[in-house]
Amino acid sequence: MNIDLSMYDVRTDLALEAKEIATQAQSAGEIPGVWSETDKADGIILTRMHIQTDEAAQKIGKMVGHYVTLEVPELRQGDTTLQDKVATSFAREFEAFLKRIGITEKSSVLVVGLGNWNVTPDALGPVVVENIMVTRQFFELMPDQVNPGYRPVSAVAPGVLGTTGIESSDIVQGIVQNSKPDLVIAVDALAAKSLDRVNTTIQIADTGIHPGSGIGNKRKGLTQEILGVPCIGIGVPTVVYASTIVNNTMDMVFEHMKKHTPDTEPLFGVFGKMEETERLQLVREVLNPVGHDLLVTPKEIDKFMEDIANVIASGLNAALHEAVDTDNVAAYTH
Amino acid sequence: MNIDLSMYDVRTDLALEAKEIATQAQSAGEIPGVWSETDKADGIILTRMHIQTDEAAQKIGKMVGHYVTLEVPELRQGDTTLQDKVATSFAREFEAFLKRIGITEKSSVLVVGLGNWNVTPDALGPVVVENIMVTRQFFELMPDQVNPGYRPVSAVAPGVLGTTGIESSDIVQGIVQNSKPDLVIAVDALAAKSLDRVNTTIQIADTGIHPGSGIGNKRKGLTQEILGVPCIGIGVPTVVYASTIVNNTMDMVFEHMKKHTPDTEPLFGVFGKMEETERLQLVREVLNPVGHDLLVTPKEIDKFMEDIANVIASGLNAALHEAVDTDNVAAYTH
Amino acid sequence: MNIDLSMYDVRTDLALEAKEIATQAQSAGEIPGVWSETDKADGIILTRMHIQTDEAAQKIGKMVGHYVTLEVPELRQGDTTLQDKVATSFAREFEAFLKRIGITEKSSVLVVGLGNWNVTPDALGPVVVENIMVTRQFFELMPDQVNPGYRPVSAVAPGVLGTTGIESSDIVQGIVQNSKPDLVIAVDALAAKSLDRVNTTIQIADTGIHPGSGIGNKRKGLTQEILGVPCIGIGVPTVVYASTIVNNTMDMVFEHMKKHTPDTEPLFGVFGKMEETERLQLVREVLNPVGHDLLVTPKEIDKFMEDIANVIASGLNAALHEAVDTDNVAAYTH
Amino acid sequence: MNIDLSMYDVRTDLALEAKEIATQAQSAGEIPGVWSETDKADGIILTRMHIQTDEAAQKIGKMVGHYVTLEVPELRQGDTTLQDKVATSFAREFEAFLKRIGITEKSSVLVVGLGNWNVTPDALGPVVVENIMVTRQFFELMPDQVNPGYRPVSAVAPGVLGTTGIESSDIVQGIVQNSKPDLVIAVDALAAKSLDRVNTTIQIADTGIHPGSGIGNKRKGLTQEILGVPCIGIGVPTVVYASTIVNNTMDMVFEHMKKHTPDTEPLFGVFGKMEETERLQLVREVLNPVGHDLLVTPKEIDKFMEDIANVIASGLNAALHEAVDTDNVAAYTH
Repeated sequence: MNIDLSMYDVRTDLALEAKEIATQAQSAGEIPGVWSETDKADGIILTRMHIQTDEAAQKIGKMVGHYVTLEVPELRQGDTTLQDKVATSFAREFEAFLKRIGITEKSSVLVVGLGNWNVTPDALGPVVVENIMVTRQFFELMPDQVNPGYRPVSAVAPGVLGTTGIESSDIVQGIVQNSKPDLVIAVDALAAKSLDRVNTTIQIADTGIHPGSGIGNKRKGLTQEILGVPCIGIGVPTVVYASTIVNNTMDMVFEHMKKHTPDTEPLFGVFGKMEETERLQLVREVLNPVGHDLLVTPKEIDKFMEDIANVIASGLNAALHEAVDTDNVAAYTH
Repeated sequence: MNIDLSMYDVRTDLALEAKEIATQAQSAGEIPGVWSETDKADGIILTRMHIQTDEAAQKIGKMVGHYVTLEVPELRQGDTTLQDKVATSFAREFEAFLKRIGITEKSSVLVVGLGNWNVTPDALGPVVVENIMVTRQFFELMPDQVNPGYRPVSAVAPGVLGTTGIESSDIVQGIVQNSKPDLVIAVDALAAKSLDRVNTTIQIADTGIHPGSGIGNKRKGLTQEILGVPCIGIGVPTVVYASTIVNNTMDMVFEHMKKHTPDTEPLFGVFGKMEETERLQLVREVLNPVGHDLLVTPKEIDKFMEDIANVIASGLNAALHEAVDTDNVAAYTH
Repeated sequence: MNIDLSMYDVRTDLALEAKEIATQAQSAGEIPGVWSETDKADGIILTRMHIQTDEAAQKIGKMVGHYVTLEVPELRQGDTTLQDKVATSFAREFEAFLKRIGITEKSSVLVVGLGNWNVTPDALGPVVVENIMVTRQFFELMPDQVNPGYRPVSAVAPGVLGTTGIESSDIVQGIVQNSKPDLVIAVDALAAKSLDRVNTTIQIADTGIHPGSGIGNKRKGLTQEILGVPCIGIGVPTVVYASTIVNNTMDMVFEHMKKHTPDTEPLFGVFGKMEETERLQLVREVLNPVGHDLLVTPKEIDKFMEDIANVIASGLNAALHEAVDTDNVAAYTH
Repeated sequence: MNIDLSMYDVRTDLALEAKEIATQAQSAGEIPGVWSETDKADGIILTRMHIQTDEAAQKIGKMVGHYVTLEVPELRQGDTTLQDKVATSFAREFEAFLKRIGITEKSSVLVVGLGNWNVTPDALGPVVVENIMVTRQFFELMPDQVNPGYRPVSAVAPGVLGTTGIESSDIVQGIVQNSKPDLVIAVDALAAKSLDRVNTTIQIADTGIHPGSGIGNKRKGLTQEILGVPCIGIGVPTVVYASTIVNNTMDMVFEHMKKHTPDTEPLFGVFGKMEETERLQLVREVLNPVGHDLLVTPKEIDKFMEDIANVIASGLNAALHEAVDTDNVAAYTH
């Protein structure tokens, strides 16, 4: 339960949102040094983004690297056909990541589930790990008998600082040193900028997990620099700050009323003309002292978490093992 | 997962809040026909209220009857000493309710845990039921061997319409007809008007559970009229609507700024002068179409629910059985 | 946790085993008044039995009625393809039961999950109930909008005497009176005569659930006499008495050694010549005083329970709703 | 679910049982090089044993070192007063271990919970870890603000080979290298020789955890040699082999009948005169081919595990932190 209340700000863990904010902030259209494309199909909005230059990275506040975002507004409806489609899309995009960073079909992989088992919206990583098809032990114990189409995959959930007393990155570092995977995949729950992203959006990034991102106070990240091997980060927003809900709703209220009254000054006065960050600051000033600026989560979070964790685990199992696809993968998850 | 989105409005399940709203709405001070007193001690704000007349009931929007509210702002901190104090206060107040409605030490009691096991913030009732000291079977099977200091207590969690297909009040009615308790105690999770009430407030009411209250769409209540025996309702707010958070924060922002600028008109324009209900209406108009007006809950809801359910179960066990007090009751809960 | 240690004896909850015992006991071959046939396919041994006369019923110790047993020795291996086949077989056999007792596609059904949530091997009923497609509420609330191919299905888990204080049959009776289903289906965990039946065998019987059967001390059953509507019982052995393991193993040891030495008298002495019931009596005399005759269960019971509960829930969903088959039913279970 | 069926034999993980077997095997009384003493009080049989020489170690089949065993036959009754007494005894004995191996009040400790979260009887370690008072993070982040009476404690549950793909000892080694504790405490579930030991016996040993011990196939242990720091092992039998139940019961049956008939030869023949190991071998020969020699566990294992894990966690918290005793420790466990 170790939330660092000081750390949240306009910054978001989603590169997609960060780019939107940066683009809004500058009036001159697209940001140079950022390539992106968007596909819409089957209820899935798929955005591939490449932050190519340090300037772009600084402007957006995200590392140079590749990012893929799957937005699936209907994902909370519990439709298993849609879930299967998302898992398949996820697997296809993930395979492209593996290829791009030179991970072959033989390379060994360690899947790390960050977060806290005992706090439902923070349990994304541990639940995904529980559904990963783990095979490394067979390659270690009886390498000759492993069927083709599989690679060595291991999976751990290192826990969080508040329940282990040890930084999760220190635990993962030790495991990487002793088990020597070629790639680390880190799955983590994120804080979202808006309630409609909660459990509907998945981000893949080849930049790993950075300090201070995710739920909980991570003081060290999981990156190639720290681990010595590449690290792909997978994130899903599962919580949102109460202050963010308020601020976003205010925006929507203003937009809504502007449609009817061109001159909004008499409508909202000085308040309506504040900068977004200034207004967010004000909202926090009001909420924090009374302890109201909680991280909140939808009431049905238990079911939502189960669904999206299964989507990611199915997608990963299919992407990591050639012999597995999202049709037969259900056998390995529950 | 059967939330009736149409049903929420300014109305609250807490009589205390309803009275505050009604009092604010009329400028002339106290509402006639309502008696109330407040004690503060040990971090617990205890309010006893008696709605005495039909006029008062109509004004407040709550039934004629007795209500006790325990507000414990620090209850989410996980302090077990405070939890014990709250359980003891709760037991003492609850015993007063039993006496007032003529329940003797021999009267048999059925505890009903309303709500959905599988949705954490709705599982208050089922978790309380799991920790109730159940004794009715001993009175049925070997009445001569039951030690003094106990009464026949039974406990059921009937499930919710969405998972059983049957109204919970129909199930409870059937159980009451067949097991013939002298009193029903119904425990339910409520929607709060503000985030700081979530898992910090407990209400006891001798008016039972009314249609449409609690989380989930209850079309029939649990009342003396329906059950044929008295029904005491115990409720704890565990969720809050996103729109309520927004609206309450707006109030706080306005109050905050008014302190510095007496004339708020240029500050907030027309928006600042709206009636609260009008503004809430506007916020919902904006949130509903995009599906953002979710019922939300704090991230740490799992731990909060466990703590408050134990407080209520301990308090009930001590209040129902003379031989049990909140010192030795921990043996029966976990 | 209310096992009646006095009640177990050679008697078994499985009609198949009861018939075997009865057949062994009489040397003259088949028992008159019992019809049975056995199919083997796909790793499933399917036995349909009809106890036709009171004499046969008395000999076997089971009620006059129809019984189907699915024995699937490999069901504990976690093979999802086999699980699907078993669910499909189960659904087909179950539909035959429905037809035989005159349940039409429109008839309403109440599924009752007997047993204790908190004791894994006793949680079969509650876990099945959690995965049943419940539809009754739609027929009640918006009968015109229900798609064809569905019937009104409700589902409850009434708990056990030790945790509710009320006989589960009294609770079910009350629910049946108030919700008026045309058929009750009761799912319960049983004690097996041998470890290899645990979580590998499913029995369907149109005779309901009888007093004293299942795990836990049921003093009243769930039968047409008690409920006023037909009751189909579904049972799975999930526990076995330590004394049963010992006794069965002794039999196997004797058989094993007899193969090598025709004259077993010097091998086993008087002990080897005891009647099975006499020997079992001896084993219990030894185990009971020291409290060793526990009900035991395989170490991996958590996973086994999940698998077999899903098989039964999928099978029931497919059998009860024409629009559902075991291919698409996975969507409704997890 | 990675049980090595080949590895079990008469050998036991409990030094106490190993000594009994060794003592029975030699007719000449006590084994030289083994010191032991036994206290009985408050329903707890406490045995302290010191295996002092290599000869004794070889005879008993346990390492040279100190062992303490708490046998509490009534521990499965759910009596919380008894549980508190056991936690207090455990804490006192554990503190003696710490002193003997030179662990001061300032030394840092890593608690390792071995075993599989998802298999109830194997989850002892993970459940204990969940209830350990973890403090290392405070010493790392704000060393000046930690109250006196605490030491740096961290706690991890590394998972099992079958679910992580990595030997748990490899994971722990990596964590020890990176977090540098002065002592490792490893908690593990064991296989017992008899059902009455299951969840009633706790062993502490300063010899760590050895390869092949515990439930599951551990090919590497957790010892000072492997970890570079001392390792205290804590074990509780939670499962028993079906073959062990059979064999032990046979012994009891023979003993029982011998009391009445001095000459047992006609009673049991050759079978009665077999050596115990020979007979066990025969029982296994019979059970193994049919897959009946499962590891079994009492039906109520869920509750038993919760109780004994709380006893150990409370005891450890009191032993590790001077400021904590078993009276106030309940605050930290649940």
